Order: sequence, then structure tokens, then C-alpha cells
Amino acid sequence: MKGISVFGSGRMGEIFAGNVAAHPGARLVSVMNPNIASARKLTDRFGGRPVGTPEEALADPEVEAVIISTPTTTHLEYIEAAAAAGKPILCEKPLDLNLERTDRCLEVLEKHPVPFMLGFNRRFDPQISALQRAVRSGEIGTLTFLMSTSREPAPPPISYVRTSGGYFADATIHDIDLICWIAGERPVEVFATGSCMVDPEIGALGDIDTAMTVMKMPSGALAHVNNCRRNVYGFDQRLEAFGSEGMIQTANQRDDDLIRWTSQQTDAKAPLKHFFLERYEASFRQELQEFLDALTEGRPPSATAEHGRTALAIALACEESRRQGRAIKPHY
Amino acid sequence: MKGISVFGSGRMGEIFAGNVAAHPGARLVSVMNPNIASARKLTDRFGGRPVGTPEEALADPEVEAVIISTPTTTHLEYIEAAAAAGKPILCEKPLDLNLERTDRCLEVLEKHPVPFMLGFNRRFDPQISALQRAVRSGEIGTLTFLMSTSREPAPPPISYVRTSGGYFADATIHDIDLICWIAGERPVEVFATGSCMVDPEIGALGDIDTAMTVMKMPSGALAHVNNCRRNVYGFDQRLEAFGSEGMIQTANQRDDDLIRWTSQQTDAKAPLKHFFLERYEASFRQELQEFLDALTEGRPPSATAEHGRTALAIALACEESRRQGRAIKPHY
Amino acid sequence: MKGISVFGSGRMGEIFAGNVAAHPGARLVSVMNPNIASARKLTDRFGGRPVGTPEEALADPEVEAVIISTPTTTHLEYIEAAAAAGKPILCEKPLDLNLERTDRCLEVLEKHPVPFMLGFNRRFDPQISALQRAVRSGEIGTLTFLMSTSREPAPPPISYVRTSGGYFADATIHDIDLICWIAGERPVEVFATGSCMVDPEIGALGDIDTAMTVMKMPSGALAHVNNCRRNVYGFDQRLEAFGSEGMIQTANQRDDDLIRWTSQQTDAKAPLKHFFLERYEASFRQELQEFLDALTEGRPPSATAEHGRTALAIALACEESRRQGRAIKPHY
Amino acid sequence: MKGISVFGSGRMGEIFAGNVAAHPGARLVSVMNPNIASARKLTDRFGGRPVGTPEEALADPEVEAVIISTPTTTHLEYIEAAAAAGKPILCEKPLDLNLERTDRCLEVLEKHPVPFMLGFNRRFDPQISALQRAVRSGEIGTLTFLMSTSREPAPPPISYVRTSGGYFADATIHDIDLICWIAGERPVEVFATGSCMVDPEIGALGDIDTAMTVMKMPSGALAHVNNCRRNVYGFDQRLEAFGSEGMIQTANQRDDDLIRWTSQQTDAKAPLKHFFLERYEASFRQELQEFLDALTEGRPPSATAEHGRTALAIALACEESRRQGRAIKPHY
Repeated sequence: MKGISVFGSGRMGEIFAGNVAAHPGARLVSVMNPNIASARKLTDRFGGRPVGTPEEALADPEVEAVIISTPTTTHLEYIEAAAAAGKPILCEKPLDLNLERTDRCLEVLEKHPVPFMLGFNRRFDPQISALQRAVRSGEIGTLTFLMSTSREPAPPPISYVRTSGGYFADATIHDIDLICWIAGERPVEVFATGSCMVDPEIGALGDIDTAMTVMKMPSGALAHVNNCRRNVYGFDQRLEAFGSEGMIQTANQRDDDLIRWTSQQTDAKAPLKHFFLERYEASFRQELQEFLDALTEGRPPSATAEHGRTALAIALACEESRRQGRAIKPHY
Repeated sequence: MKGISVFGSGRMGEIFAGNVAAHPGARLVSVMNPNIASARKLTDRFGGRPVGTPEEALADPEVEAVIISTPTTTHLEYIEAAAAAGKPILCEKPLDLNLERTDRCLEVLEKHPVPFMLGFNRRFDPQISALQRAVRSGEIGTLTFLMSTSREPAPPPISYVRTSGGYFADATIHDIDLICWIAGERPVEVFATGSCMVDPEIGALGDIDTAMTVMKMPSGALAHVNNCRRNVYGFDQRLEAFGSEGMIQTANQRDDDLIRWTSQQTDAKAPLKHFFLERYEASFRQELQEFLDALTEGRPPSATAEHGRTALAIALACEESRRQGRAIKPHY
Repeated sequence: MKGISVFGSGRMGEIFAGNVAAHPGARLVSVMNPNIASARKLTDRFGGRPVGTPEEALADPEVEAVIISTPTTTHLEYIEAAAAAGKPILCEKPLDLNLERTDRCLEVLEKHPVPFMLGFNRRFDPQISALQRAVRSGEIGTLTFLMSTSREPAPPPISYVRTSGGYFADATIHDIDLICWIAGERPVEVFATGSCMVDPEIGALGDIDTAMTVMKMPSGALAHVNNCRRNVYGFDQRLEAFGSEGMIQTANQRDDDLIRWTSQQTDAKAPLKHFFLERYEASFRQELQEFLDALTEGRPPSATAEHGRTALAIALACEESRRQGRAIKPHY
Repeated sequence: MKGISVFGSGRMGEIFAGNVAAHPGARLVSVMNPNIASARKLTDRFGGRPVGTPEEALADPEVEAVIISTPTTTHLEYIEAAAAAGKPILCEKPLDLNLERTDRCLEVLEKHPVPFMLGFNRRFDPQISALQRAVRSGEIGTLTFLMSTSREPAPPPISYVRTSGGYFADATIHDIDLICWIAGERPVEVFATGSCMVDPEIGALGDIDTAMTVMKMPSGALAHVNNCRRNVYGFDQRLEAFGSEGMIQTANQRDDDLIRWTSQQTDAKAPLKHFFLERYEASFRQELQEFLDALTEGRPPSATAEHGRTALAIALACEESRRQGRAIKPHY
């Protein structure tokens, strides 16, 4: 039973605390939030004790690992503290929205080489990982196209957008990580463009809510991503991998799989699962499993800080491409 | 260019006259209807001349073949006349609703062995014939189950029902013929039951509008048919063949194949084609083609009078089974 | 935390013991099997202690409820013992294969009215229960047809078949219970027929491995079931409810939902989940949940002994119908 | 009966000659090819007489309209001749691969304003035109994304590629025209990239066989095209229109619609129709219908020379973008 402290008690902290509490091989020792009342709300539900500072959490000998799900700007500080205390870390993505601060994270982890895993949860979705395995095993021959559709039900509050790092670093970064992971290579060139078609307030910030990205891989394979912050039929999440021997696609998910026939339409299914908490519920559990397995087996977790740096470099190149109207080579 | 006379100018006469007129290898010589004004409506549209009697039509040397699409009770008389005149015949199903009169048709055709084809049009539907070929070629191994769903959009006028011969002889007979044709054998035993759930006037006639039929084949294979005279989503026509090596299903058909996603439903298609005229449009053309091909090639057409007798015998056994509440062996 | 003793440590006992152990509101107190070594295999994995007699298990004050998953012939004895001891019971279906002994169970439960639930697990499958709710809420108007397809991957050992009570009582009984539960009524008449197409040894016992059943409901609605003990593409489980306002179907389930396109086929999915342990995994968990919820809320569980008697009566009527070749009225 | 002369007797000339011959409102008067033996092959099959020069064809008073399906480089010459002779023209796309020569075509048509239609056949495909009508009628609200997938079974002979004008002008131009037609606007900016992944000989010419294109519309809507010259599962042709109120997709087409279930895969369909002749068979017939309807109704055909110029300008901008690695504004 690994004793775990969850840093942060927001939406993601709640997911992590709940999954730790339900896991037969883990125990929720504490939830850390400077706003201790917020931490207590989770410990009341899931066990463990609320603490107000990282120092207090890390000083507890029962804490054998830390999950960081605090605001992005605090990641570096908490990674530094936990790594210095020798605690294995599972950190929500992104490491940071700034490439220099991201590099600082990598340096910290080089200095204090604790097991570290970055929360690219979608890799742990059963459907997506099945597609990745199929592609990597050569089932479709030489990969030619990799297409990712990711359309959210509704835009987040404008306050969230303001500190999100821009649409590519906030949202496309998930698709980028999946594409690099599935393709087994990272783009030599990206082009991205976008519009503000959903919420004019987002446009007023200079950001976009509708985006398309093209990436060219060293092998010649091309990748496409389309993102939108509005989707009336739910959280549309599709991957399509096309190669010299065929194509594999992931299916969308719904609360139920009933097929309905009426005078108005036939062969119809329900709208998609609402958003990432519902769609990727299984992936968050599998992500925790991978973290615990890696600790048990004494091997590095499969989603690393370097992967986080790569995805951020590409997302920043997308943003630069959008602003400059030309293809950009990411800085790896 | 085969010269053809179409007997009858109702709904089916219109289909046949139109298909003959459009066919590069056929010519509409005449349309026969004792009500000559009705015949003229078709000849005005499709060419040829209206005639009021079978004698007049058959005396015309340009008439090389006859298509009979008159009311069922007149089939025997017209088959007799056309066969005596040595004209090849394509006759709408059924031969007759009475087994004795059906046998009389067979005798007539034995006496005057003209090429004869019965209008089991569904066999000529491209999807259904593809399924039949796949099953007959052994693609699913030993046939185990054969399921036919046939649900009409709305009940016919009660006047039609009154002379229809009952639901099994009117509607199920199509499914019965397909099942025998696909299975390559005819049932040793049938059980059928039904309800009146759509139109109480149908029930008042002692007939039904909702039926299920089970057939047991000599091989042990079992067949199921469900029929209903009401269906809000169109003309539901599905076949499923299940065997020791797998399953093959036919797909339904729609006016367009667009896939629609809204806030209410996803992956939705349009309602099905409305009824048999729309759904089996291609099959009526292919049926005419088979008739003309058989004449050209000097071989018997593939859907024979005997097939019609077999299907009727089974349909009548279904009716008897429903009335007696027990399995019945058809009289072949 | 309800303390639970699981009677039986075979395939179903393993499922129940595992689900009890994993449930946050339940605790596995003991596993009972006269062959105590077999019980110990489960307690070693899931906790609790192995016991060799029902008396010992029931005498334990920590045991607050009993799950009976022993061979069918022992159900009556263990129900009697547990009911006399005042313990709530979740019993695997069927109560018994004999209608008189089933009635004896009902009498026992009348005498000792402990909370009792029968393990009709499929009712608790999320897809099937969603379809039932939709039908019962009137979504498709008046129910007209209810079709159940249930085809197993491979026949069981002949030793199992020998004591199974025949194919209808062993397998069709699940479809029968679902049909009555979804339709909200029980048939006035059933007809069933079958063949031996899979395993000649089954036929040598006078049993069948391929069956079709028709049921007529008081409302006039008709139900169809097809069962087969061989299916190369997995455990085919489909329900189709057709009514005056439309149709609802459940979808089959696979280990992954990837869609594959190759030079040989397109839009293809993986074979279905192998058999009931895989397909109905969620339903077994939900069934336990319903049992615990009913105990907590002080209400009777939703699947009762009477439902079990009804389903058995219908299954026996199917067997009688098959043997007599006529429609049979079940004895309720 | 419009008398028609078909210029050219290659693959497309054969399609046009056959469709004219089969059309009840048209008559094939002549087929023109300087290689008169090639023309004769078609007139032997479809009627009319072979002629060796455009002058001879145009001098024939029975020729009321001309269909030009000769090599692209000859289009300008034949348009000029036919327009000067006052004959309505249906011309295969593209007008020309060179923008200046395309403008020369437009000038010719301004000087001799005969009815002129450009052969953007895909607009006349029943599925695609149904999608266009649905989008234009506002069914999905404000258009946000328009995605076009077009993947050919195999690369053409290298001799064809050499004079094709590059992959964008040869293939993407179809997707470009559809996108502008469906969106009702033309891009302000395009970005395109590509690889040579199929045939190294294509790469040796400086051309590509694998391409992705992004277009930004004045409304902010974004369009994506992916093209590949190799596809093992047939001619993949999909359109997806996503908007503020939902999404509409077109379905692919197969020779049969059977659904197959085996031990290896379930719910599988056949590979797609092989290539454009098979997939767009109906569209070529509908295209001819539109041309004849426009002549009969005295209105301009719906696909104009200007549309051809627009699509070419965009395709050339794609090529320029690929070479320069930046977004390009097309020259309209």
C-alpha cells in the first residue's frame, strides 16, 4: 500500500484523491492545499488528513509518493520540493507553460532523480493505447496520416483562458503528445492556424477557440489536429491512423450504447460523453496504475518529463506558426 | 428488342411498363386493361397502344412476351390465354391464393410449356442476392439460423386486406420464398402466430397485422420471420444468416446515407426508404433483366411457378398453424 | 460494511467472492464449500475464512447475508438453512430445475420472510437496463416485438449438459426473464423448437443446442428468442424492442472498440467478448450493488423468487412445446 | 433529344459517350478524335459517327452541344472552336493547368457567351449534394470545420503524373472545389505540405503523393484536406462538416452493403469502391443531366468556368505554400 499525498484539491485533485482511495495498492495519506478547508473537503470524503504546506506533507514518513495537481504555475516549486525530499512524483501536465521553466524542471529532476511521471492521461485510455499498440506493431504498415479530432463541449471561463498559455498549449498539447507517442517520432515542422468562432472574449485576449494543426514527421508521415471549444454533441475524441496496409480508428464513447430508430432518424446513438472527466475516467485510473506499477517494478514511468517538454515545444511552435503564418521547426 | 404487352395498369403495371420502356432490349407494345382508359394512361407515358382484351393483345404479332400484373384472381385466366398463344410469361406473385387453382396454373404450363417466370422480385435485389450467393457458396459454413424482418410503413386499405388471402399469403410469402431460396431447402414444419395490434378493422376480418413465423428445415436449420403492418421509421427489410463459420446481414436502405450528429443524437441516419416501390426499385429492373436474359439465352427463368406453389403452400401452413396453435407440415 | 458468506467456490462463487471483496460496502466473511480446500483458494485471494458446512457459516454472527452459488440441486437446502437463520439471501438462478421444488423454495421464503434476491444478472447490465427503462417509459410507444439473440461461443462439457435441465431451462431462461421484465407481462402461450446442430452428444441425450422460441403476450406483443451453443465470433447478445413509435436495440460488446480497414474488409470491429463472464462483468457487480442497496434501504430486491418461478414455468413450457409440436400455456 | 458531339475517346470520353447514349433526352451524334480509329471504338458501341477534326464535328448541324474530354492542354483550343461555333460546352476539369491560359478561356467565353459547364462531377454525387444542401440550409448552424478525405487506390502511371500539374492541381482541386461550394466562400489563405511516401519516381519529379492542406475562410471557418495516392481498402471519399449546431458526414460506398461477422472480425463491410469511375458513376450521369437541364431551361449550368479558375488558383497557392513553407493568399 503506497502512501500518497495529493497536492491540490481542485477538479483534478478530486479525481486523483478518489482514485488513490479506491485503489487496492494505494492509500491517501494527505491532501495538501494552502487553503486547508478545500483540502479537508477531499479528506472528509476519501480519507487521509488535510495539510496546508508542501513541507508538512513531505515531512510525513507515511507519504511515499506525491501527486501534483495544483495550478500549473506552482508545478516547478512543488516538483523541486518533492524531488529534494526524494519522493516519486506524478505531476499533472503541463510541467509549465514556459520552456525555460520547463527546462528548470528537467534540471531539478536530473539533480534529484526520483521516479517522475507526467500526467498525459490519454495515453492510458484503453482505446487509445490499443490503437497505439496496433500502429507500433506495424498492423497498418508504414504510417502515412495520423488525424486527431478533439472538440470540447463548451469554452472554459475566460479567467481560465487568460492563464491557459493559449489554445495550443492548453488543448492541442494532448493531441500532440498522442501523435508523437503513436508515431514514435516528433515533427520536424508544424503549421497551425485558428479562428475565434465561439467566444469573442477569447478573441479579445488574442487567443483562438477553433484551430487546425499540421505536422510533418521525419518519416514523411503527416499529422492533423482539429480543436474547437464548442461541440453540441459532447466531447468528440477521435483518432485515425492511416498507413500503407490499412486504417485504424478509435470510436467515440457515450453513456449508453443503445441504438434508436424513430420516425425522425434511424441507427442513432446518444450524444457523446460530456467532457474529459467522463470520457477519460478509465484513463485516470490506468494512469495511477502505471505510476504505481512503475514504482513497484523499479522502472521509470512511461510518460516522462521529457515528453512533456517535447509536447510543449511543439505547442509553442504551433502558436508561433499561427502568429507568423508559416511552418515552424520546434526547438527540441 | 423484345416486344412486350403488360397486362394490368395498376401500381405494379406502372412499374413494369416503365421498366420495359426504359430497357434497351425491350419495347412496350401494348398495355392491356378492360378499362382501356387506365391502360391509355400508361401508354401515353411509356409508348405502345392500349388494348381492352387479352385476345387483342395476344393476337398482335409484335407481342413476343407478356407481363401479367393484374389482380391475383385473374392470373389463372391470363396465364392460360398467354400460354395457349405460346407467349413467354412474367407473372406477378402469387400465382393464385388457392392451392388448387395454383396447381391448375402448373398444369396449364405443363400443357403449354412457354418460358414462365414468377415475380419474386426480392431475389433480384442486389443486396439480397449477394447474401444468397455468399450463403450458398458456404461462406458462413453450415447454415444455422435465417432471420427475416419485414415491417411495412402502414397497413393497406381494408378493401385490399379483405382479398389479400391473409397476412401470411400476402406478405410473409416474400420472406418464405427468400428463406427457401437462400437455405436451398424447404421447411418440414412451420409454426406461426399473430396479433392484431395496428388496425382493429383487420382483426374484425379475422386477419392479423403482426406476425411471427418459425420454420424448421430438413437440415435442422431454423428460420424466423417477423412481419408488422406499421413501422414509423420506414420499410424495415433485414436478412440475417448465421452459420457455423459466421454471420452475414443485409443493410437497410435510405434516400441518403448522410450521418448526422446533433445535441440530441449522434451517428444518426435518415428514416428508411418508404415502402417496396422505393426499396425494391432496383430489384424490379433486375427481375425484368432476368426474364429477358432467360428468353435470349433460351433457358428457364430462375424464379419458377413451382417456387410460387411452394411458397404458397408454406404460407397456407402458417395460416393453419396460427389457427390451430400447433406446428404444421406444409403440403408440397 | 455488510458481512457476507459466499456458498460455493466454483466459477460463479469466484465472481461473487471477488466482487464482495472489492465492494466498499461489503466484507467477505467466509466462503463455504464442503470441499474446504476449494473454499480456501478463494479466501486466500479475497480474504475471509473457509468453512465446510452451511451451519458453521450461518452460526457466525459476522455473517449478515448469504450468497448461494452452489450447484442448482443444493439451492433449496441452503435457502432453507439461511432463511431459517434469518439471513438475507442472494441466490444464483435458477432456484431449482423442478417446478415442485421451486414452489417449495417459495414456501420456505414465505415461512421465513428474509430479503431474497434471485441472480438474474442480465437485468443489471447497464445496456439492458437502459433499454428496459426506455421501453417501460413508453419511448417506443406500444411494444410490438421483443427479440433476443443469445449465442454462446461453444457448448459446455457434456457432463454439464446432462444435469442442465435442457437448453430452455439452462439458457433460454435468461432471455425469458428479460423479455417478461422488459415487456412488463408474461406470455399466455409459447412455442419452441430446436435442433442438434453443434454437438451430436447433446442430441444423444435428447437435448438440443440450437433453438427458437416464440411467445405471445396478453397485450398481443410477440417475442422471439434464438439460442445457439456455437458462435465463432464470440458471445452474441442482442435485444431489439420494436413498438408503435420506433425501435431500440442494444449493442454487442468487444474487448476494444477499434475500427479496422484493410484490403480485405472495412469498418470492422473485433470479435465479441468471449462469454458471459466477460460480457456481463459489470452486471454481476451491479447485481451485488442492488442486493446491498435493498438491504440498506429495507426494501425487497428487484429480482424475486417469483420471477424465478415464472421464468422456469415458461422454460418448461418451451420444452413441452418442443416435444409436442404445439403452442403451450405456461403454468403460473 | 439534344444532339451531342463528344470530343475525346479516352477513359472520360467513354463515360460521357455512354451516358449520352443512355440518356432519353440526348443523342450521340459524333465522337471526335484526331485518331479516328479510337473514336470509332466508341461510336461502334454507342452510336453516332467518328470524326477526326473539331471543324468537322462542329460543322454538323445535328450537333447541338459539345462535351470536351480531351487532354487538358487541348481544352483552350477546343473551347475556342466550339464557342465560336455557338455550341454549348460541357468541359472536363480543369480548364487548363496554367492560370493565364485559364483566363484566356474565360475571355473566349466572354466573347462567345455560349452556355458553359465545367465538369466538377463530385458536386453532382447524390450524397455530396445532399450534404451541401444540408449545410447551406443551416442545418449545422455556423460552419466551423470542413474536412475532406480523398485517398486513391494506387498512383497513376508516371507519364500521367509528369503532365498532371502537380498533386494539388490534379487531385486536391476536387476537394477544393467541393469545400468552396459547400462553404459558400473561398479561402483567404491556404497552407499545404506533402511527402513522397508511395512512389519514389513521383518524388524524383519534385512532386508528392501524400498531402495535407489547410484553408482559412473569410468567416473564420477552417478546412482540411488529406490526399494520398495509395489506399489498400479502395477509394476513400469522406466529407465531414462540423458547425455550431452539429455535424454531418458522408458515408463511403461499396459494391455491396453486406455486414460480415467471422471469427476474425465483426460488423465488417467490403472494401470501398475501387476508384472514381466506380465511386462517382452516378455523379457523371447527374452532371450530364444538369448540363441538359440548364440548356433546356435556358439558364447557366451550376458549375462554371469561374469556379474552375477559383479552384485552380487555390491549388496553385497550395503548391506555392508547399514549396515556400508558409501560408499563401490565392490570387483570385
